[in-house]
Parts: sequence; structure tokens; C-alpha cells
Amino acid sequence: MRKKFLAEGLSLARASRKVILKKIAAGFRVKTKPDASYVTDADLLAERVLRAGIRKRFPSHGIIGEEFPAVDPGADFQWIIDPIDGTLSFTRGIPLYGTIIGLHFRGKPVVGIIDHPGLDQVFYAGAGLGAFCNGKRFRLHDQKPPLPAKDEIVATGDRAHFIKCGKEKAFEALVRRHPQVRSYSDCFGHTLAAAGSVGAMVDFGVKIWDICATQVLIEEAGGKYAVAQRLKKPGAETLYGIIFGKPRVVDWLLPIFR
Amino acid sequence: MRKKFLAEGLSLARASRKVILKKIAAGFRVKTKPDASYVTDADLLAERVLRAGIRKRFPSHGIIGEEFPAVDPGADFQWIIDPIDGTLSFTRGIPLYGTIIGLHFRGKPVVGIIDHPGLDQVFYAGAGLGAFCNGKRFRLHDQKPPLPAKDEIVATGDRAHFIKCGKEKAFEALVRRHPQVRSYSDCFGHTLAAAGSVGAMVDFGVKIWDICATQVLIEEAGGKYAVAQRLKKPGAETLYGIIFGKPRVVDWLLPIFR
Repeated sequence: MRKKFLAEGLSLARASRKVILKKIAAGFRVKTKPDASYVTDADLLAERVLRAGIRKRFPSHGIIGEEFPAVDPGADFQWIIDPIDGTLSFTRGIPLYGTIIGLHFRGKPVVGIIDHPGLDQVFYAGAGLGAFCNGKRFRLHDQKPPLPAKDEIVATGDRAHFIKCGKEKAFEALVRRHPQVRSYSDCFGHTLAAAGSVGAMVDFGVKIWDICATQVLIEEAGGKYAVAQRLKKPGAETLYGIIFGKPRVVDWLLPIFR
Repeated sequence: MRKKFLAEGLSLARASRKVILKKIAAGFRVKTKPDASYVTDADLLAERVLRAGIRKRFPSHGIIGEEFPAVDPGADFQWIIDPIDGTLSFTRGIPLYGTIIGLHFRGKPVVGIIDHPGLDQVFYAGAGLGAFCNGKRFRLHDQKPPLPAKDEIVATGDRAHFIKCGKEKAFEALVRRHPQVRSYSDCFGHTLAAAGSVGAMVDFGVKIWDICATQVLIEEAGGKYAVAQRLKKPGAETLYGIIFGKPRVVDWLLPIFR
């Protein structure tokens, strides 16, 4: 079944990519949400297309997405989707946004897909099936000690996210201790970490739909995925802090952020 | 003549892109240079192809490039080239590197080209001819006051470059004063600024071949280009600190870095 789930997830990603590229060509409208983040009509349309595709293929599965209410939150299988992760980049014409699709079974990741329409790259993995980019299997190579290697990039999300989660001091400690820290925000950093293009990524203040594909992608590529923080405020989505990538780099980073 | 120079520059960029993509497919070797930066045999081969192409087309013009000695340094016309800017990204499979080609006449920019083979995007401009991406003319729109706009990205090069130039404090002041600072290193940040995808870029510790295409690209797109620092150490290349992008954003940034 996992192979079928992965294949269907990829078919959903293709449908959503088509919608997004069409919207880019035709022009889209941008709205600011109450939390000051953006949403565009491309987001909304792509999420509708994804939701309809999931309901049609798997009527008994639940759906969690950023822009609309959850469907069947009690179901064993949950599709978690973020049609455009990195909306700020998307609205600015920066091609580093992506579509995130994850399938979890009782909270455990089964399938993870991150599609980058602007880069013509789709990364995907199924539990036990391996990690792939555009049809080609890949594995990351762990960094050799001693750490940190001077030329190994550590990716982070935006600094504002660390401040929001009380991790500003830890962020500053990282920047002082390692010369090669770069902000590769959103899911672009996640796929760079899976591919081993960066040593690891540190991403705080992110929600379930931002990270639902990452664990299986990283683990199937031979990497390590760790949850360093869970912030649960009443009436709000849980904010996660995750660190993932080459196992030794993740182990070097964890004490800084815990 | 400027139109001919631009057309010939684009033909050089196509030749160099071909070499680079071939090298990626075939595999390339990475060497560490005495200054701890990288060079690959893709850099070397692309620079040789560019130099040969320039010599053949314009035998009376000079050539300045990162990897080989200058040719005819006294000539009025100087082609300045960096076959792979962002070599760290390139060696890691991060598609945000680029080929930079500039033509200067007595120190003034005539043609500027930044080609991103990994993004299938070529940005180019000729003095008085406009700025283009993949054949389409573009202009940036200035930011409206008050500044800084919370959602306007300011791009920077790597923090290590600011430290090298004595601008660590200024860098930290920027990060404190503006919530949306992202490292978009190397020429990827330059083309984002030209396109208006980011408000501006602050890039310090860069050499002539890193910036030779930027001024004409930015100015032809309607932006502002300012040199904030010139560091000349005996026996070494001049290090520049430049700030460029939307005029009001550049004007807001300049006092922080001067």
C-alpha cells in the first residue's frame, strides 16, 4: 500500500504544480492574513485541488491543511498539506517555495513529498521505500569529525521565528560558533538537508504542515530528524522546533538548541 | 556597438552554461585554494572557454578573471568574468550559483550578464538598453515609505564576509533593526535585487569579478547601486562593500553600513 500511497501523492503533487504554474503565468492576488502572513489565490486554489483529489482517492482518510478546516480528524490516515510553503518567496518571484504533502498513519509518517515547481524538482520518500528526487534515488553522506566542519553549511529559517520561540540566544550562539550559517527558509532548506547539500537545518516556530514530509524524507535519505521543541499555546497550533540532516551535524547542533 | 557587445556576451554565457551543465552531468573535481575557497575543474574549464571566446571576438579587449592572470590590463575595454560565482553552493548541488560576465569601458559598465544555469534564468543589461531576464524586459518598483517595510526582504552575503571587512557591528545592527534579513549569497542575491524580489542586497568583502555585472543590471532595472566600502590591502585584490536595489531601501541601508 505504501507504494500506492506514494504514487497517488505524486499524482496530487503534479496536479497542484500545474495549478500553481498556471496561476504564476496568469497573475495571482495576495492577501494578508490576521497573523500578518500571506495567502494568495494560488494557495487557496491549489489546496482545494489537493483536498478534492485526496477525498476522491481516499474517502476514509482525514485531511489537515493550512487554509481550510480539518476533515475527519479522527481517521487513522491523515493527509497533511501545505500547497505553498514559503508564500513570502512565492509572492516575490523567488523560486524557492514548495508544495508539501505528507501522509501519516496514527501520527507516524508514511509518505513525504516536497515539490519545487520553480526549480522543477520534486523530492519524495516512502517509509521503507527510499528517498528520491525527480526519479533518482539519493542518500546523504554523514560529515566526518571533527565538527563543525568550516565549509559545511548549516541552514536556518528566518531569525524572527527563533525570536518567537524564545530561541534568539541559541540562534546567536550558533552564528558565533559556526562560520557558515545561511537562511534557506521554508521547505527549500528541508530538501537541501535531505540531499546533503547542507549539513543540517535548524527550523523553529513551524507548524505540522510545514514539517509533515520532512521526517520520512530525511530518514529515508540516511539522515537524522529530531524534535527539539514543542510549544503548545492554548487556542493556537503547536509550534515545533526541528533539527535534521547529517546525523553528526544534528548531534552537534542539538545541545545548542535544547 | 553596445547591442553587439551584449549579444556577444550572451553568446559567451550560453557557451559557458553548456560547459558547466556538462561538467555537472559528468562529475567534477573540487580543490581548495590557498585562501580556503574552492575551485573546481568546471570553473577552470568554463573560464578557459570564456577567455578563448573573448579573444576570438575582441582581440583588442582586456580580460580580468578570477582563476587566471589578466590579459591587456591597459585596454579601454575590459571583460571581467567569474565563471562560477557561488562555488560553495555549486559544489553542494545548490542551484543558486551563477556565471558573471561584465564589460567595462574605461572603468564604466557597458554590459552586465548573470547567468543561472541551475535555474534556467539569464539576467542581462546594456547601458541605455534596459534590463532583461530570459528575453523579457523588467523594471523594479521602489518601496513606499515608511521604511523599513516589515515584509520587504533585505538580502545579505555570508556573515563571515562582514566580519572580514570590519562590518560585524553594522551587520548586527541591520539584523536588530529589520525582521526580514536573509542570506541570499553571491550573484543569486544580485539578480533578486535587480528583479525587485528583495528590497535590496548588502554585499561586503566582494571582488571586482563578483560585482562587475551588477551596477548596470540594477541601474537599467531602475534601481540604485552604491559602493559603501573599498578595502585595499597591499598585494591583495580590492574588497568592495556594495548596497543595491530599490532606491529608498538602499538609502535606508546606507547609513547603517557607512
